[in-house]
Order: sequence, then structure tokens, then C-alpha cells
Amino acid sequence: MTQAWAEKLLAGDRLALARAITWVENEDERGFSLLQAVFPHTGKAWVIGLTGAPGAGKSTLLMRLAEGFAAEGLRVGVVAVDPSSPFTGGALLGDRVRWQRRIQGDVFFRSLASRGRLGGLSRAAYDAIRLMDAAGRQVILVETVGVGQAEVDIMHAAHTVVVVLAPGLGDDIQANKAGIAEIGDLFVVHKADREGAEEAARHMRTALGLSPEARGRREGYTPPEEGGPAWFPPVLLVSSLPGKERGLEALLQALRHHRRYLEEKGLFKELTADEDRRRMEEVLSEGALKWVMDLAKEDGTLDEVLAALRRRDLDPRAAARRILARVGGEKKVP
Amino acid sequence: MTQAWAEKLLAGDRLALARAITWVENEDERGFSLLQAVFPHTGKAWVIGLTGAPGAGKSTLLMRLAEGFAAEGLRVGVVAVDPSSPFTGGALLGDRVRWQRRIQGDVFFRSLASRGRLGGLSRAAYDAIRLMDAAGRQVILVETVGVGQAEVDIMHAAHTVVVVLAPGLGDDIQANKAGIAEIGDLFVVHKADREGAEEAARHMRTALGLSPEARGRREGYTPPEEGGPAWFPPVLLVSSLPGKERGLEALLQALRHHRRYLEEKGLFKELTADEDRRRMEEVLSEGALKWVMDLAKEDGTLDEVLAALRRRDLDPRAAARRILARVGGEKKVP
Repeated sequence: MTQAWAEKLLAGDRLALARAITWVENEDERGFSLLQAVFPHTGKAWVIGLTGAPGAGKSTLLMRLAEGFAAEGLRVGVVAVDPSSPFTGGALLGDRVRWQRRIQGDVFFRSLASRGRLGGLSRAAYDAIRLMDAAGRQVILVETVGVGQAEVDIMHAAHTVVVVLAPGLGDDIQANKAGIAEIGDLFVVHKADREGAEEAARHMRTALGLSPEARGRREGYTPPEEGGPAWFPPVLLVSSLPGKERGLEALLQALRHHRRYLEEKGLFKELTADEDRRRMEEVLSEGALKWVMDLAKEDGTLDEVLAALRRRDLDPRAAARRILARVGGEKKVP
Repeated sequence: MTQAWAEKLLAGDRLALARAITWVENEDERGFSLLQAVFPHTGKAWVIGLTGAPGAGKSTLLMRLAEGFAAEGLRVGVVAVDPSSPFTGGALLGDRVRWQRRIQGDVFFRSLASRGRLGGLSRAAYDAIRLMDAAGRQVILVETVGVGQAEVDIMHAAHTVVVVLAPGLGDDIQANKAGIAEIGDLFVVHKADREGAEEAARHMRTALGLSPEARGRREGYTPPEEGGPAWFPPVLLVSSLPGKERGLEALLQALRHHRRYLEEKGLFKELTADEDRRRMEEVLSEGALKWVMDLAKEDGTLDEVLAALRRRDLDPRAAARRILARVGGEKKVP
């Protein structure tokens, strides 16, 4: 059965792709088998992440970018990530559906909702990206709401990260406090038709100048003066307001420059491989926890340790260590 | 040595507390030993979390609340959590230091910076809270920036969660999209001196009415009509602007009501115990991963699997499963 779905997916069938993403989102084993079957055909897509505070107009900008790439004849995928609601696991999809209908061109759109587990969302996003990749989507735009650790984690999946700002959302805060200077490859001051846009761009440029890491968000970065790659994140003014459109073509151009830079430096493949390994460690981490917990349940260690934790005789760290010592034997304790 | 530090800490010594938090923040074993030594004396502090979008004035509100509690004769602790920068691990502390100097009363202030690991920040915050708890801080205010999964995770450590909003930050977005209706026990429309505050409060009340989960953010919540606890999150208007102060006393009163409600329902101790267990599982998860990786390194499985992952013969999930199957033996595979 997996093989039949895999063939459809590799042929770019939209229904098969939609079904496959639903499976991986629901942690359905069929989705995981399918992903394994098509994995050899992945690693080709260019993944672009869009992040920034709510209200910056990321969805509008994403729509314009998707249309821009589609107009060049590229097959585009969109993964929109709604913020986690730890209780409902839900997401308001109405807006998304409206946007989706308005996008022109060959764009495959998918919204993901977190199931409330820390890390669950970024894993689902990773799987959705790889499935789109297998289905021949050449550019995949990933949108996250807000700037936080989970968002940073999702952005690891992107080759190119665009941070979207807007005037009037607290420029200092946006530029400095949220730690975004280090995660962006490109910065967009969106809603550039509004007052304060130039100032917001100036703030951002200053913040980038003050941040040595801003010159390259990749670990192991070597600055140009030491022979390393020369990429300094541009700050672009863009307006998507009908009749006052501005800067979109320059943004598309800057994105293409970044891609070329990644390829010339050999970073494009390397980033994909890094992300694959990171995901492997995440799955391994979950599996290892389950394994250790099962062993600790079998011999009664878990109950004993939980009782001590409740009595406050053991703190959480000491409790965890006791379990590891019991199930792993003294020599293997981390 | 641990014993001497533990005695100082339990006596409320501020320098010992500061040192201990630095140790746990740096993952220094001395801090972990100390936390274990004083752990039997913890579980008393009331932890109040403040969260919300940047620009809502959380720091100002936090300062007022700290002063309000201190004026009642309570020993107050503050844990301010700066957003993660995955590359610098840094945080701009200047603002915090200025605030700290301006706070009146017996308030112990501490800012934490993430070391860039997902989950690292919430673990450091947990440890800092428990150390403050041991040192006799009776109310501990925890501030996080932004609403994301990591922030939700930190908020688990709080008995009472205050979501801080402000007019003009995109009311619909704040109220609906960020999934905050479910996480707050109290909602504050801050900067209530500004235009649009009443409207923002109305938006939030509507969002709460539409969200069944909003009536109680705790898992296993039973609605009042079925005999469950009756807590409906209030939406309060507060201004901290000098000369236009408003609503702070009502907020303090609402917070005290929430605490009494938690105690009457037996939830106060339960929430503390839940959080302890959650932290134990986190430490266990890390330890289990390290253990499995070490085993896989020893027998060459890790190298072999990583090579297959690079060749795209195995996807990350299949790669993780192969490692678990090898090191755990077939029967123990998750």
C-alpha cells in the first residue's frame, strides 16, 4: 500500500500529498512509512522560513512571495504553522482558507496545528516539508507566528530565514529584545507604506551592526576577513498594500541571491543534512525516554522514585538520576 | 560544602541565593547538589506567571505587583526570562537592572538568559523558582516575553498565570490567534489609559466566552454545572502610568482570590507536584538520550546509521528506530 501512495506522491499528486501530511500530523504510522519510502527523493526543495511578531503581515507577504515564485514557473509549497494551544490543540483556520483561495498559481498550501507537545509542531512541520519536497515542490515557504524557542526550532528547517517586522510594533523590542538579529538571513520591514517604516529599518540595521553574530546565523561561521562567506543580512522595505505595492521584486531578488550564496558555499546540502540529523536525535530522544520509563516501571523503580519526589525527599533531577542508575547499571549512568 | 550553602540559603541569604541560581543556570553540579539538599523545604511559594506580547508593559506591571506584595510584608522573588538567542545565549540586561533599582521593598530579582537549547530556559527557570522557594520567597513572579511553546512550558511552573495585553497591539490577534485564552487564569488589559483599552477588554471577554477551555486551564477540569471548580478568568483594566494609575489594587485582589480558590480545591499542592514530575521526565529524557547514543557509538551503530541518513537511504525516524532496535534488543524497541 505504501508503494502505491509513494508513486502518487512522487508524481506530485495533490490529494496524495494532502493525505500524507494529515497522516504525519496525526502521527499515523502510514505517514511515517510513506515518508521513509520517498525519502531518497527528498533534499531538493529550497525551504524559506518567514517569522516575526503577530501583526507584521506575514500571511500577506507569504501570499505575494508564493505568487512571485509561481509566476517564475516554480512549484510552490506553503506550510503555515499556527501557534500551539496546549489545551485544544486547535487552530483558527478560517483566515488561512481565505488566503489560500486568493493565491494565484501552482501553490500547495497546508496549515498545521500543534498537538500541544513541545516539539510536536516542529516535527510535524519537518515531515510536511519533506513530503512536499518528495512531491516536487521546489520552493517551500514556512510561516510561523511569533518569535520564541519553538519558532527558532522550526526555522532550523529553513535554508533561508526571513524576519518580518512592521512599523509601530515597538521597533526597539522587535529589533533587540526578541533575539531575532541572529536568526534572520533577510529582514523585511513590511507595511512600508506606513509612517515609521524608514525608522524601523534604521533600528534594525543598527541592531544588526551591533550584533556580531548577525553576519551569519550558521554555527561555525567564519567572517569574510578570515576567508569565510560574505553574507550580511539586508533590511528591505516592502509594502503589499494594493496600489502602494513596493519592494517585492527586490525581496525576491535578495532571496535568489541568498540561495545562490548557499549553493556556492556548499551550505545548501549541509543545512539539509544538519536538519535531518537534528530530527533523528529528537525521535531518538523520545524513544529512549519511553524505553527507560518502561524498564523503570517493570521493576518498581518508577513508583518508588515518584513517591520520594512527592515526599520531597528527592528533587526532580536526583529522581531522574536514580531511575537511570537503576535501569542502566552504575557504569552506564550519564 | 553543600551543607554550608544550604544553611545560608534556607536562612534567606541573598548572596547565597544569587550564587545558587548562577550555578543552576550554568548547569554547575554545585547548584544541583544544593537544590537537592534544600528540596525538602520547597513547595511553599506561590508562583505567578506573567506572559503576553512584547510591548504590553509586562515589566512595568511586574514591578507594581512586586511592590504591592512587598507592601503586604511578603518576601517577593522575581524571575525574568529573556528570549533565547540561539547563537549568543545573551540577553540585554540593561533594562532589567534599571527596573530592579527602582523596585521598592523586599524583592529579590533575577534575570535568566537561555543557553540556546530548547527547554534549557524553562529548566533554569524551574530551578531558580525552587531555589527562591527554599530561600523563603513567598511570592515568585515569573515574566516571559512572547507567547510560544517554550513560554507555555515555563507557565506550567506557575500556579497562577496572568496574560498581559495592551490596546493597539492587534486585539484580535492577541485574543484569538496566540492561543492565550486557554493559558490565562487572569487577563490584564494594561495601558488602560490609552484609547482602545475598553475595546481590547471586550475582544478578550468575547474570546474567553467562545473558548470552553478558558473556564479552567487545568487538565481534567470539570465545569461548575457538573460540580467542578468555579473559576472564570476575569479581564481587568490596569494602568501603571504615573498620575493615571488604575486597577492595580483590583488585580492584587483578583490574584489573592485565585490563590484561595487553588487552595480550597486542593490544586495548589497538586500543581506543584505536577510540575516536579514534568521536570523529572525532562531530565530523564536527556539522560536516556545520552545513554542510548553512547551505546550506539560503542558498537558502531551510530556511524553506520548516520551514513545511511546522509545517503538518504534512511529517513530520520527510521534511523532513530534502527538505533533503538540495536541497543535495546528487539523486544524492548518502542
